[in-house]
Amino acid sequence: MKALVDLGERALIERIRARAGDVAPAWVALGIGDDAAALEPPRGAYDVLTTDSLIEGVHFRRDWSSCRDVGHKALAVNLSDLAAMGARPRGVLLSLALPTTLTVEDFDQLIDGFVTLAAEHRVPLIGGNLTRSTGPIMISVVAVGEAQRRRLLTRAGARPGDLLFVTGTLGGAAAGLAILEAGRKRDDLDAEAAACVARYEAPEPRLRCGTIVARSRAATACIDLSDGLAAGARQLAEASRTGVVLKASEIPIQPGATLDRALAGGEDYELLFAVSPRQQRRFLGTLRVMKSLPITLIGQLTNARDFCIEHDGRREPLPDGFSHFTEQ
Amino acid sequence: MKALVDLGERALIERIRARAGDVAPAWVALGIGDDAAALEPPRGAYDVLTTDSLIEGVHFRRDWSSCRDVGHKALAVNLSDLAAMGARPRGVLLSLALPTTLTVEDFDQLIDGFVTLAAEHRVPLIGGNLTRSTGPIMISVVAVGEAQRRRLLTRAGARPGDLLFVTGTLGGAAAGLAILEAGRKRDDLDAEAAACVARYEAPEPRLRCGTIVARSRAATACIDLSDGLAAGARQLAEASRTGVVLKASEIPIQPGATLDRALAGGEDYELLFAVSPRQQRRFLGTLRVMKSLPITLIGQLTNARDFCIEHDGRREPLPDGFSHFTEQ
Repeated sequence: MKALVDLGERALIERIRARAGDVAPAWVALGIGDDAAALEPPRGAYDVLTTDSLIEGVHFRRDWSSCRDVGHKALAVNLSDLAAMGARPRGVLLSLALPTTLTVEDFDQLIDGFVTLAAEHRVPLIGGNLTRSTGPIMISVVAVGEAQRRRLLTRAGARPGDLLFVTGTLGGAAAGLAILEAGRKRDDLDAEAAACVARYEAPEPRLRCGTIVARSRAATACIDLSDGLAAGARQLAEASRTGVVLKASEIPIQPGATLDRALAGGEDYELLFAVSPRQQRRFLGTLRVMKSLPITLIGQLTNARDFCIEHDGRREPLPDGFSHFTEQ
Repeated sequence: MKALVDLGERALIERIRARAGDVAPAWVALGIGDDAAALEPPRGAYDVLTTDSLIEGVHFRRDWSSCRDVGHKALAVNLSDLAAMGARPRGVLLSLALPTTLTVEDFDQLIDGFVTLAAEHRVPLIGGNLTRSTGPIMISVVAVGEAQRRRLLTRAGARPGDLLFVTGTLGGAAAGLAILEAGRKRDDLDAEAAACVARYEAPEPRLRCGTIVARSRAATACIDLSDGLAAGARQLAEASRTGVVLKASEIPIQPGATLDRALAGGEDYELLFAVSPRQQRRFLGTLRVMKSLPITLIGQLTNARDFCIEHDGRREPLPDGFSHFTEQ
């Protein structure tokens, strides 16, 4: 089996270029291969920019996940950030630090996972870089998008009284991670458990949902749930200078997951929207086109600057979400 | 001494924000703190985007370089890519993967090195991300710039007969690295050796030079010398579908370095320009404002598609430059 060291940097870049294909929308003036990429800027819109990394041993393990899933996820988490801004993706850059012992097969799988998701969302790979790693695999992705000026969805636009809606179901990714951590064999998993593992390994960025809501201007704020619902709700409320109260009984928990995992687990990459009560009907109306994606009312922003969850009428403080650099 | 694990992710992001200061040019619509950053796009110009990473043990060692120098260099190599396109920087994103045992002092130094160079070039830090690393420090930077449409400097615009000019002196960074590898103490270095080490540790991106040349349209192509002169000249010629011949005797070698290091050493981050002979006077004229930066004619692009260097009238093939994933 060939390893990266047998091929050399240039051959690997050529492999990426070949796999990425010829997706070059009109706005790509200069793609892979020069010192930098060049794009025609969006008209009447903002450039939206985000970057996020996956580190082996922190965000994934190779004995749990295929390189294909890792490549998919590295892009998905970045596209999810664009979705949370209501931005449409225009290009992505891929930075890889790889051990020289990685097999070429694993390399190809990683690239395939990445470019398959990119092609699904018609976003061109316009650049990046490739280097050796002395330790874990590290994947850094940059996603560039556009959002109309008055339609940019930040975390900060919400007001007390706004309703909180969440897409999809929560807790699945954390439940999936727990299944992998427990060392359960994939072949022994029932459908519910397999679906949770899939949520952890191959999250789907809610790009369409984000852009539909942004275009309609029916939401006042949005965040993607990378660190769990509790952290997301808290961050949205903090940025908007409000408090928040969630209703435990309303939270859409993925079959096989628990409320705790929905709140503190993270990595579901669903979107949390704040919506003015007057816009609620319009908000739900515009999302009716997304037939398969449930949208659930789970709470409200408040004047009181505290962060609560209501269980059977009793209010408790919201738990914290995931934080790097904190002993868990 | 406090380590990162004692502070937590949010406190660290606040430290970065405090150190980055309030540099927010008018085009920054949304900076650090949301799911993504938003910029007003440049008018009548391209968005120029590049990303490059430094990995501990591959690009730097902590027992050789201070965290301050590492932070500086991580940004410098990205700004150098913008310089090579003739682009003006508009914003940067900083992605850090850090061992939890890193001291807060080292963290602060790294950020200081980064933001000091950013402030020097008036480029705002608009986002990024922070994660734990299970191994080496990894720093990924994204630099966003703008370049006027007809003034973008690619590698591909040169023609046979164009002259090759290089900025500054070459080989210094490789000589500096060799000094560090030999374990020589800093206090024992003479001025020449110390200058070489400084070239390796704290390269200066040639942004001003790149934008002046781009604005004048006096050059047909440009590349920055990250992998050595030989690799740079070869890549520029390949992209422009020409050959190249360099004159060994003309190459400006940094005192303390050698021709070999200038050709194959890399990390000098000087700029290599191709200039039509008819534009030579104008090219040198526009650069006269950069008084302290030497500009040297070192060779020419050719019709013959080979890559040569002339020593005392004898032509030899150009050596290869540095490549990751190739046994050196």
